[in-house]
Amino acid sequence: MPSPRRPGRPERDAPDQRLALLQAALDAFVAEGIAASTLRSVARRAGVTPALLHYYFGDKERLIEAVIGERLMPVLQELGTGLAVPVQDERALLRGFVQAAFGLFERHPWLATLWVREVLSEGGALRERLMPRLAPAIPLALAQRFAAAQRGGRLNPDLDPRLLVVSLIGLTLFASAAAPVWRGVFGATDVDRAALVEHTLALLERGLELRHAD
Amino acid sequence: MPSPRRPGRPERDAPDQRLALLQAALDAFVAEGIAASTLRSVARRAGVTPALLHYYFGDKERLIEAVIGERLMPVLQELGTGLAVPVQDERALLRGFVQAAFGLFERHPWLATLWVREVLSEGGALRERLMPRLAPAIPLALAQRFAAAQRGGRLNPDLDPRLLVVSLIGLTLFASAAAPVWRGVFGATDVDRAALVEHTLALLERGLELRHAD
Repeated sequence: MPSPRRPGRPERDAPDQRLALLQAALDAFVAEGIAASTLRSVARRAGVTPALLHYYFGDKERLIEAVIGERLMPVLQELGTGLAVPVQDERALLRGFVQAAFGLFERHPWLATLWVREVLSEGGALRERLMPRLAPAIPLALAQRFAAAQRGGRLNPDLDPRLLVVSLIGLTLFASAAAPVWRGVFGATDVDRAALVEHTLALLERGLELRHAD
Repeated sequence: MPSPRRPGRPERDAPDQRLALLQAALDAFVAEGIAASTLRSVARRAGVTPALLHYYFGDKERLIEAVIGERLMPVLQELGTGLAVPVQDERALLRGFVQAAFGLFERHPWLATLWVREVLSEGGALRERLMPRLAPAIPLALAQRFAAAQRGGRLNPDLDPRLLVVSLIGLTLFASAAAPVWRGVFGATDVDRAALVEHTLALLERGLELRHAD
């Protein structure tokens, strides 16, 4: 039995051990869902006692916070790097975002699972915890840039700058997350990341270019 | 104990009772998830015995099939009604689809939950069961119309007709399903269905209309 004063304390604190436990927590959240994951199931996955997990992270709520802060946020902030372009260069902004977004789930395949199940799904565990932290850096910043572009006459005036952020996410993150579905429907094994980026930019920059039949 | 020959058979077959059980199954699938729903939990929800449910539907697999065939497909086919427009009138096709899609989750709020959790989510119970049935009527039909429009010079030649279907779904069904998230992020309580349709058509028909700063 661990000492009641410092339950589960390891003989020497090991930063590597803490990171391994964080990874086990992320693995459990992806495999089992956050609601179904317990300190016990994460500990079992990591091959340690629940008391050791408790020593490093406290309760499940703080473990979720650690996964958000140390694993999810750094990855999601990759989407924000595309925003570091000169003000008033909306073409570069757009290209940066679309390229970063289509690479995101490719670089971090586990992220799509969490995004669909824990953010998009009703009752998902991350929606309320993640969005307030993520919103200022990405969706709100993007919407402000689009609104400024519209005021400057550089962007289609009939778009809603907030909905344009939703449209961009639908055209990139949704398209990535749904890839197993549409690849199955269309047998579209030939479509790679470059093709996705090209199609999406052609649609965004020029629209459908519908013409009447001759 | 029900008779082993015809377990759970009601005194008289009642079509209304079958429909009520089908509704209870749909309610259970939405509330609990399909994987977690059992004949027992559906029966409890309907206030009947599992044997009666078994009498009408057999096993869980056939209950899922009945919910797909009698509840999901009729609703999803609303998306196909927008396709009943004259050949070569892609503008009408587009408008029909966008309007139908933005109305879909409004008319059937439970559908968004099932779509995200049981189709988009990895391991969802409906992906393999639903898509082969839905694909010919909607995504494949749409992609064929877009490919024909492209061959006829009536559609932006740099788009992929298959990915355009994915884009349309991202711009409509995803935007609808994610509405609780983006309404929270942007405080966008003012955006109604008409605004969503207008924004989406402006983006699709004309694109961003980016201009350089003066």
